[in-house]
Amino acid sequence: MKSFLFLSLLLPAGGFTASSWAQEPIQVIEPVSIKNAAKVELGKKLFFEPRLSKSGIISCNSCHNLASSGTDNLPTSIGHGWAEGPINSPTVFNAGYNLAQFWDGRAADLKEQAAGPIVAEKEMASSHDIVVKTLAGIPQYQAEFMAVYGGGNINIDKVTDAIAAFEATLVTPNSDFDLWLKGDGDVLSAKQIRGYQTFKEIGCIACHNGPAVGGNSYQKMGVVKPYLTKNTSLGRYQVTSRAADKNVFKVPTLRNIELTAPYFHDGAVWELGEAVNVMASIQLGRTLTVQQTSDIVAFLKSLTGERPQILLPLLPPSPEMMFKGTDEVRLADE
Amino acid sequence: MKSFLFLSLLLPAGGFTASSWAQEPIQVIEPVSIKNAAKVELGKKLFFEPRLSKSGIISCNSCHNLASSGTDNLPTSIGHGWAEGPINSPTVFNAGYNLAQFWDGRAADLKEQAAGPIVAEKEMASSHDIVVKTLAGIPQYQAEFMAVYGGGNINIDKVTDAIAAFEATLVTPNSDFDLWLKGDGDVLSAKQIRGYQTFKEIGCIACHNGPAVGGNSYQKMGVVKPYLTKNTSLGRYQVTSRAADKNVFKVPTLRNIELTAPYFHDGAVWELGEAVNVMASIQLGRTLTVQQTSDIVAFLKSLTGERPQILLPLLPPSPEMMFKGTDEVRLADE
Repeated sequence: MKSFLFLSLLLPAGGFTASSWAQEPIQVIEPVSIKNAAKVELGKKLFFEPRLSKSGIISCNSCHNLASSGTDNLPTSIGHGWAEGPINSPTVFNAGYNLAQFWDGRAADLKEQAAGPIVAEKEMASSHDIVVKTLAGIPQYQAEFMAVYGGGNINIDKVTDAIAAFEATLVTPNSDFDLWLKGDGDVLSAKQIRGYQTFKEIGCIACHNGPAVGGNSYQKMGVVKPYLTKNTSLGRYQVTSRAADKNVFKVPTLRNIELTAPYFHDGAVWELGEAVNVMASIQLGRTLTVQQTSDIVAFLKSLTGERPQILLPLLPPSPEMMFKGTDEVRLADE
Repeated sequence: MKSFLFLSLLLPAGGFTASSWAQEPIQVIEPVSIKNAAKVELGKKLFFEPRLSKSGIISCNSCHNLASSGTDNLPTSIGHGWAEGPINSPTVFNAGYNLAQFWDGRAADLKEQAAGPIVAEKEMASSHDIVVKTLAGIPQYQAEFMAVYGGGNINIDKVTDAIAAFEATLVTPNSDFDLWLKGDGDVLSAKQIRGYQTFKEIGCIACHNGPAVGGNSYQKMGVVKPYLTKNTSLGRYQVTSRAADKNVFKVPTLRNIELTAPYFHDGAVWELGEAVNVMASIQLGRTLTVQQTSDIVAFLKSLTGERPQILLPLLPPSPEMMFKGTDEVRLADE
């Protein structure tokens, strides 16, 4: 740390070609080192497991698609019975950096979050009881839970703990901006650096900072001007019932923002430039020049990192006794 | 080949402990060697591409889930608008061995098949024109199609050709039965070998033969007794309009059959033993003993192969001009 600070003193004033993360309000996202590979592998299976849903076709990956952007790129998700979800699905990439989960922060962490959609009527429409019984009826899951958690029955606590362990690995390191933060001065264009400077100067950085460039505070959507939306969510107010929390939402991460359209909790805005302008207007009371918007968008695109390489899990089959068979056939013992 | 035959002469009569594929009506499935890796990779992206659907959430993988069994394990699939499909989704694993695609064989091959669900109202509900325009608007797809197919525009012919090239790689080699066919006498239990013998003796083998243990002929569902079902499909009749083709379907593969419940074109039967008994009854006019059914089920489970290891593709983002943005913001040139 000290050597970085010392080094910075040697840089010419305004020499904005390279930097060290210690000096910047945005920090590098580092690759994760997996400590409990068996738990992460179990969590991956569960993340892709459609039997967590009532229909048998919806998994975590349905709305947080790891092949695209960790989200479904829809204004709001489509769930059980083709129901429209109430709010935009946030990306699961780098979600472990969030101070809490969901737009209103009603879940403390990834583990608590994972329990929600399973039982939400418009999402997976199942119950924790059914999910636990389903998994417990599958011998391979029994063995894997045993290997990871030792004895005792499968329960929703273990299910969501494993899913969270997998999700915590879904970080996107090595974005151009990270490489630049680490000292590679050539990787960002002059336009991108100018965009970053503007991003800091006009005040975006006040909320979008830290390793995830957001996700670490709650803020009112519409500080200077109200945000007009058909979405009925009242944000944090739904959790705290405090009047001051009306329309207060968790600040979303800007990591991989070019991949995660449409934007905002209502998913109403598809263009990144428009999203920047709306934010500047309603949060900061500013009208950006075309050049400023364009520069900031160029900077934001430098936040696209390396998406995780996921080997698709091979889900264990359901045993026959779980099937809705008749009693006509009884098989002889082996 | 000759040495195998020679070897077999040395086996004691009834020495049913090992075999060579040359002698058996079921042949080994071999791993595929990929010739055009770029095409297969492009096809994999398209297989997982939800933008092939009107909603943006349904891909080939939705109903042919490569994390489970190459199917969705539902009686009939759920598609656009939560519509129920008309017929059970067959597994995509080893589908390249089929003499034709779909239960009624209306598509000649994997390529022709891939074009169907994209436009089916109850499946992806899109159009070939929209899909081609969508893909053509994504620079990374433009580059990949160029690399694979040379010049010229993206068209549905190339899209389905690439999907088919990927699907042709989805084989499941090295099942216990294949190892046994190759001469490893220890891998099957006595019960499984007895089940195979029964399978051959009572006549199942007449239709379920070849490398895919099926998929290579059309047969009437209900040769001896009618098959009672609520499903309205008339099978091959829908393709040929010949009265003799009523209720004639492509014989499904029995590879990985323990993974692909529920069974039959209507997906009405969830238990493998029940499926065996129904087939014996309506196709062969036989009532199996509990032991015979159990033995055949044990044999069928030896047909479960190694499922393909799929590295989830990373789908390219949609460019901003494709988004439903307003004209309010126009970005300056870079």
